[in-house]
Amino acid sequence: MQALWLEDRRLRLRDDVAPPAPSAGEAVVSVLLAGICNTDLEMVKGYYPFTGVPGHEFVGRVEAAPSAPERVGSRVVGEINASCGSCEACRAGRRTHCERRTVLGIKDRHGAFAERLTLPLQNLHDVPESVSDEAACFAEPLAAALELQEQVDVRADDRIVIIGAGKLGQLVARTLGLRARDVLVVGRDPKHLRPLLELGLRVGTASDLPDARADLVVECTGNPEGLALATRAVRPRGTVVLKSTYQGNATLDVSRLVVNEVTLVGSRCGPFVPALGLLAEGRVNVASLVHARYSLGDGLRAFEEAARPGVLKVLLDCAP
Amino acid sequence: MQALWLEDRRLRLRDDVAPPAPSAGEAVVSVLLAGICNTDLEMVKGYYPFTGVPGHEFVGRVEAAPSAPERVGSRVVGEINASCGSCEACRAGRRTHCERRTVLGIKDRHGAFAERLTLPLQNLHDVPESVSDEAACFAEPLAAALELQEQVDVRADDRIVIIGAGKLGQLVARTLGLRARDVLVVGRDPKHLRPLLELGLRVGTASDLPDARADLVVECTGNPEGLALATRAVRPRGTVVLKSTYQGNATLDVSRLVVNEVTLVGSRCGPFVPALGLLAEGRVNVASLVHARYSLGDGLRAFEEAARPGVLKVLLDCAP
Repeated sequence: MQALWLEDRRLRLRDDVAPPAPSAGEAVVSVLLAGICNTDLEMVKGYYPFTGVPGHEFVGRVEAAPSAPERVGSRVVGEINASCGSCEACRAGRRTHCERRTVLGIKDRHGAFAERLTLPLQNLHDVPESVSDEAACFAEPLAAALELQEQVDVRADDRIVIIGAGKLGQLVARTLGLRARDVLVVGRDPKHLRPLLELGLRVGTASDLPDARADLVVECTGNPEGLALATRAVRPRGTVVLKSTYQGNATLDVSRLVVNEVTLVGSRCGPFVPALGLLAEGRVNVASLVHARYSLGDGLRAFEEAARPGVLKVLLDCAP
Repeated sequence: MQALWLEDRRLRLRDDVAPPAPSAGEAVVSVLLAGICNTDLEMVKGYYPFTGVPGHEFVGRVEAAPSAPERVGSRVVGEINASCGSCEACRAGRRTHCERRTVLGIKDRHGAFAERLTLPLQNLHDVPESVSDEAACFAEPLAAALELQEQVDVRADDRIVIIGAGKLGQLVARTLGLRARDVLVVGRDPKHLRPLLELGLRVGTASDLPDARADLVVECTGNPEGLALATRAVRPRGTVVLKSTYQGNATLDVSRLVVNEVTLVGSRCGPFVPALGLLAEGRVNVASLVHARYSLGDGLRAFEEAARPGVLKVLLDCAP
């Protein structure tokens, strides 16, 4: 089958990738549409040593499901962590932290920039009729944005600052905007701030940020400047959520965290059910986040485009 | 009066320091005994730009209290943050984070390495009869050790790792040992680990530490190696409490925090009432932590001794 293939930091288009075969309890999904995420871009830069088909944001259709034939034909999105169910983390209910997990397009499992992928049936969620393919592609990053609300008690009168108005910052802003009245999004690119303003959120630049005032800061830039800004903006006993990974180590004013008794919370994959719910109810608009759509065959050009500064979501049409 | 005086990173003994005058609502306390803390040692190294009398761990006797004469003669310990009561932090109940606070021997208020100090009456706690002067000197650092239990829900079956068996690590180990069954203290100096073993705690070195297994790690070293060890030892979705300040910035594997969804919690000053309770009930033994006692007049030698590697608590007799 056709697929993008990452090896030694080089991405190429191949036509000879063997279609994945489902293990017990897994389904084969034909991919309709897939989204390029910053993690994909960073993997190409060598951030993570993955060889194979990247891609983990997708919507597709169940093509085969040996143990559940009734699911064939369903339009689905999928949780990306395939867990063993028996390690200590799984038994404790932390399945996304399974010690033996494979992760779609990230770790030991070929991903979504291909005609087909496999995932355990239990990872798949049917997509409601009312959710378009484009919107369904955002289920995974929207779930990741919602994860912080599973970890931190967000209150309606919290003063919230979101650092970064890129792909993830946009989704975090939209979801927190539904929960709290005072949300300020800090970003560099006015064209990404404008739509947030229209959603009723406040926007600004780093210089608009008062020192040590925010109850909750969400860092969505993945760069050390964003992290430094976040630790400055949060009030004593406030919380900083880290939604982005960083290349290499970042330096941090740890004494400030101690003296101000700040809590830092790392946050990764999140719950699909509420994400699909928000999309189905139209409460989170994602259409404006789509920058461009390419065919899988044009995947290399799509990656080039997605890596340009200021570009939001680039989608890949994977249906042959 | 006699006092130690810190100025331009130089500590000296002075006999001509003006005795502090109490503001409204404050008491004058004659210092009986005071303890040297790592923060004092780091202030001498220039970690914090303080000029004046250092020292914030003490037991003393109320000598004058214009607005509450009935408290004269009481043997007291004192919370070190003097708060304004009216700023946003104070109104929200975060008095130790008062935006206009002075801090005994640390910020805008002369400290305990002197014959006398002043503190607001509301900061003072009577010391129960059964608590010796030496033990009372530990009320402040013991309260700091207990602070983490106000911030983190510690469960009896949590796997806990404490990094560092110095002054603060010892107190953290003793207090967590009362709450949880599985506490491992990691330290370099066998003579500091032995007494912990006798208290029924497990002890070891960094190489005894399994990767990503601890539910809760408390970092008590204040050095970047300790911090790196803590982030390695904590399990996914576990918590690292930072009890020590660091000179300058520390580098941190932030991606690991994000991928493992670790929570990092800065922790500073804590509640005196339970600390005094533990001391009064004899549930936390601190006598073994006293390394030496010096007179205030020998304060410079006391500081030299306290700065030697492997030395635990050095106390200063401040009564003339």
